[in-house]
Amino acid sequence: MIFSSDNWAGAHPAIAESLVMHAGGYASAYGTSELDRKVEKRFSEIFEKNVAVFFVATGTAANSLALASANRAGGVVFCHREAHVNVDECGAPAFFSHGARLNPVDGARGKMEAAKLDAEIRQFPLENVHGGQPMAVTLTQATESGTVYSLEEIEAIASITKSHQLPLHMDGARFANALVSLGATPAEMTWKRGVDLLSFGGTKNGCWCAEALILFDLSRANEMHFLRKRSAQLFSKSRFIAAQFDAYLDGDLWLDLAHHANAMAQRLADGVTASAESRLAWAPDANEVFVVLKRAVAARLQERGALFYDWPVPHDLKGSLAEDEALYRLVTSFATRAEDVDRFVAGC
Amino acid sequence: MIFSSDNWAGAHPAIAESLVMHAGGYASAYGTSELDRKVEKRFSEIFEKNVAVFFVATGTAANSLALASANRAGGVVFCHREAHVNVDECGAPAFFSHGARLNPVDGARGKMEAAKLDAEIRQFPLENVHGGQPMAVTLTQATESGTVYSLEEIEAIASITKSHQLPLHMDGARFANALVSLGATPAEMTWKRGVDLLSFGGTKNGCWCAEALILFDLSRANEMHFLRKRSAQLFSKSRFIAAQFDAYLDGDLWLDLAHHANAMAQRLADGVTASAESRLAWAPDANEVFVVLKRAVAARLQERGALFYDWPVPHDLKGSLAEDEALYRLVTSFATRAEDVDRFVAGC
Amino acid sequence: MIFSSDNWAGAHPAIAESLVMHAGGYASAYGTSELDRKVEKRFSEIFEKNVAVFFVATGTAANSLALASANRAGGVVFCHREAHVNVDECGAPAFFSHGARLNPVDGARGKMEAAKLDAEIRQFPLENVHGGQPMAVTLTQATESGTVYSLEEIEAIASITKSHQLPLHMDGARFANALVSLGATPAEMTWKRGVDLLSFGGTKNGCWCAEALILFDLSRANEMHFLRKRSAQLFSKSRFIAAQFDAYLDGDLWLDLAHHANAMAQRLADGVTASAESRLAWAPDANEVFVVLKRAVAARLQERGALFYDWPVPHDLKGSLAEDEALYRLVTSFATRAEDVDRFVAGC
Amino acid sequence: MIFSSDNWAGAHPAIAESLVMHAGGYASAYGTSELDRKVEKRFSEIFEKNVAVFFVATGTAANSLALASANRAGGVVFCHREAHVNVDECGAPAFFSHGARLNPVDGARGKMEAAKLDAEIRQFPLENVHGGQPMAVTLTQATESGTVYSLEEIEAIASITKSHQLPLHMDGARFANALVSLGATPAEMTWKRGVDLLSFGGTKNGCWCAEALILFDLSRANEMHFLRKRSAQLFSKSRFIAAQFDAYLDGDLWLDLAHHANAMAQRLADGVTASAESRLAWAPDANEVFVVLKRAVAARLQERGALFYDWPVPHDLKGSLAEDEALYRLVTSFATRAEDVDRFVAGC
Repeated sequence: MIFSSDNWAGAHPAIAESLVMHAGGYASAYGTSELDRKVEKRFSEIFEKNVAVFFVATGTAANSLALASANRAGGVVFCHREAHVNVDECGAPAFFSHGARLNPVDGARGKMEAAKLDAEIRQFPLENVHGGQPMAVTLTQATESGTVYSLEEIEAIASITKSHQLPLHMDGARFANALVSLGATPAEMTWKRGVDLLSFGGTKNGCWCAEALILFDLSRANEMHFLRKRSAQLFSKSRFIAAQFDAYLDGDLWLDLAHHANAMAQRLADGVTASAESRLAWAPDANEVFVVLKRAVAARLQERGALFYDWPVPHDLKGSLAEDEALYRLVTSFATRAEDVDRFVAGC
Repeated sequence: MIFSSDNWAGAHPAIAESLVMHAGGYASAYGTSELDRKVEKRFSEIFEKNVAVFFVATGTAANSLALASANRAGGVVFCHREAHVNVDECGAPAFFSHGARLNPVDGARGKMEAAKLDAEIRQFPLENVHGGQPMAVTLTQATESGTVYSLEEIEAIASITKSHQLPLHMDGARFANALVSLGATPAEMTWKRGVDLLSFGGTKNGCWCAEALILFDLSRANEMHFLRKRSAQLFSKSRFIAAQFDAYLDGDLWLDLAHHANAMAQRLADGVTASAESRLAWAPDANEVFVVLKRAVAARLQERGALFYDWPVPHDLKGSLAEDEALYRLVTSFATRAEDVDRFVAGC
Repeated sequence: MIFSSDNWAGAHPAIAESLVMHAGGYASAYGTSELDRKVEKRFSEIFEKNVAVFFVATGTAANSLALASANRAGGVVFCHREAHVNVDECGAPAFFSHGARLNPVDGARGKMEAAKLDAEIRQFPLENVHGGQPMAVTLTQATESGTVYSLEEIEAIASITKSHQLPLHMDGARFANALVSLGATPAEMTWKRGVDLLSFGGTKNGCWCAEALILFDLSRANEMHFLRKRSAQLFSKSRFIAAQFDAYLDGDLWLDLAHHANAMAQRLADGVTASAESRLAWAPDANEVFVVLKRAVAARLQERGALFYDWPVPHDLKGSLAEDEALYRLVTSFATRAEDVDRFVAGC
Repeated sequence: MIFSSDNWAGAHPAIAESLVMHAGGYASAYGTSELDRKVEKRFSEIFEKNVAVFFVATGTAANSLALASANRAGGVVFCHREAHVNVDECGAPAFFSHGARLNPVDGARGKMEAAKLDAEIRQFPLENVHGGQPMAVTLTQATESGTVYSLEEIEAIASITKSHQLPLHMDGARFANALVSLGATPAEMTWKRGVDLLSFGGTKNGCWCAEALILFDLSRANEMHFLRKRSAQLFSKSRFIAAQFDAYLDGDLWLDLAHHANAMAQRLADGVTASAESRLAWAPDANEVFVVLKRAVAARLQERGALFYDWPVPHDLKGSLAEDEALYRLVTSFATRAEDVDRFVAGC
């Protein structure tokens, strides 16, 4: 009953096998091998557009390089207050961008509200050199709250972003989970709705370590080669990333894995909803479920071997919890088993 | 007949199998799993000392973080003119150190001369704020020229380094190759001779992607946790690195692989020495062989499928090459087969 | 009737004359002249302690270098939400500190509350590498709201700061105004209450350009020499700063000028308080007065030549303004004339 | 007999008086005053072109911001080996450019040879991401060796620079000295010959502190506003710089002062040439004279109160000095008196 995080799972057997299959033989280094190119082409097919693909070591690297690509002196990046870039990357985006500031934008359940985004950007008019200048907007899909922006919501964010002539980045650490949640195509959820740069995560959905920065605007690619290398993110045996993505993107494996994780989340949500003692904090869109449990219930579950984290209660929900209740986050993954979900639910 | 680089090979079967073996099950993320800890302990055993171990994505990252750990404003790092940090890392060490300068030190065949190192450091007396201040010394073992510093040579460099109260870093992208060449222990080749920080490379010697920054001075470890995360080099499923090192360091696999690579280099060297037309540029100590071939011979070998790079001729050898000759680098690895070496030699 | 800012005034005649007096003759450059040393000594006398003094070009530079001196990877600086470092320095503190984050702390009228500071710092426990690590606290004295921390309030902030083992910086762009407001000595308002680094501003109080970074902890001085030079803040003809400070600190000129500015602010405040139509937003402690005027009154004053800025209304005062009212900031300086204050008040 | 440096002099009386004259009254801050604008216009007249003017605190700041304006990831800047940016700025250009590397170019007497510049740039082909990418070329006029590039030499450097599509920066810390040496117009010595950015120095030629970064390409101006502020180089009472330049550029004061300094250098050179014991190392073009003196002669002069520095002997001159001789640098300025020159010469 491990619901701590989707990065506690290992690798899907097909991913691991791909690494074995490609271990032999020689291939040119630094992203120039045939396998690297095959995977790059596959990304262009998937996105229905020629894209530039940069493998990197971590999601934090993909996010930080995306923002570095938009760098301006005294730059200000707009993101949700709870976004990974803002709270979980130890200042990497600012380091890669030489001191850029992350300006939090509010909105319920991890989604920036377009109007609030606009108001925040307007606080930095270009004629006021003292405040700094807007440089990029980044949204997370699926969000840290397990919700998913609808296509219309992405478009609304993009519209504000474009009106200020800023690039729009999507942190897609859980891209596949969001995609299957919406039933959209990769193109529809990104460039067709105004996304310029995408952190495409595979690690949380069954890979060992497979993260790619996808550029929909090819004019950014030349500089990105140097930005990536300068950041020590260019792998020599790059095909070990390619081998993972090769299996991941083969057929619909990546979507199947995300479907499974989301389905397990829904099973959890349904079980909790049916429980007398426990309840959902809000409905999950992807593979993260936020539940309100009595502390005693949580403790009992943990005694039985369940692993999960408690979570800060959003401001607007603070009144709704009883004294003896707390908020908890449960994350499912490609590896989550239905019986573990059911055991958990039985204990709620 | 692929002698382009040791990073053109894939992964040794034992490394690949280890990834399969550890793919299932759950483990805590970000370097906190049992497997991560087991490997860290193994490093302390190997080095006969409690060391702090930081897995990172690339050798460039290990080098850059080591130097960042020694960072000073207006800092100057001393390295061999041909060192990887100086010519092949796209300014990453300077980026990680916020503008530190790499000051080249000369010396034949990739090795800094201690006296020249001392003279270069003395160019930056601390009372002259305009020039900047010395901050670290880094040496490469084995060097980019396929040579290996003797223990006495390391000690001489360390002695100069310490006399200026600077930390000494060793770029050990080919650490194992150097070690078996000297027949020394890991401790003897590092901290016992004055090395403070080590980039320990596994990738070039049979891993997919396994690089570790080793700190012999534990007081640097706290800050390094933040330096690494801030640089987007902290893996979530960190155990995929641990799994590689676990197999790599098991028994003497890592030393056996290096022995093989070095032996193949010696076989190449012997063959070239025996050839009528071709000759060694200098004797190899590890797994890189530098040969002088007639251009026509090189072309003929390449037609037969041999892959290798030409190389700039060191200043002191410039007069020794004939018009129709050039210098070439041949790199062997754990994967090099004797029959390929022999085929190459036959064509020399 | 110019109340826009204290940096709209020029230089006090004594300061300008000092520049003329020292214009002739030769002196060694880069801060090593006799005049530089005389002024450094004067600072040590004034602060009753041996201090290290670094002249820099701007208050932003002094603040940014102070924070850079405390730099940590993934560092987090705590300051009031409305602090100059946070809203008016275009990211300079983050640039100088390679990506440090400024974490706002709330508190009424420009002063951080000690308890809120503590709560904010606790959000970054050192065992959570993802969030970054606390690195420094900075308070502004006098604040951007024209208020002044009492000695006890400084001590309370310092106590929290020390309990987290962080250095405490004071942005003293209006140091003299705060000092005469409290009737304290420079030592009492700084190191005796736990301040480690001070931006000592002269520019807003009668100098052309005279800012000094004062270090109470001399162990930080060596690195600061390089930090300053590396930031292009080391003047060659440094004595032109020294000449200004020489006159500024001679006798009690600097305190007299601040007394005058504060008295003019009080005269303004008294006048506004006596007015039927207008009122103080809050009582001024130093040389900035915040008033609530009917927009029509403000417009009428501006027509008559008064210059001043409107100001965002603090959250807790939002309900207290009528529809036709707005908040305005009036800044007095060494150059403000009583008759201009009286003319302004007459129009309120 | 002070020939240490032109930054040991104070300020010309007309400059000092201008500061007194403008000390009274109010003016808007941060470079927006009428006086700021008047001086900006004057620069456009002088350069026969609309230019963007940015006052900064130091020549190092002007140089560093110019290079930051051309910033690229893994960027490489080409400059003469002895250039101020390379040896006397404590890494400021690299800090402002987030780790850019300065790549030295050789050439006799402080001047880069165009062919050598070309060869150095070619070492960084854009397809080799490991080496980094060329980003700018900077030349110093007059050079650190007291020589001056002819207009044809500037054009040759610019031609190579443009062929690689790089911007060309001129470090004009001694711009006026070079200008009067060539008898050229400001336009001829800069943009008409391919210079894109200019550090225009006034400090060494009679100002207290007056440095301006001049952009001939106005498209770089928007970002420069933020680069400057972000670097803590935007003065609040900016008109104290404007006041200096106002007097400096009034009539031909700046050219007259440079004429005087150069004439004093020539008088020194003539005197030394006529001496039996001493000789010129090479002919001066501007206000720095390099002489070969017997060490005993130098010591005798120093005993009599002469101040000057010894200097490293260029490689190609090493054989030409006797055992008891050394190389010395003598710098003249607007303040140098003929009688001091004559006294010095008499002692040679």
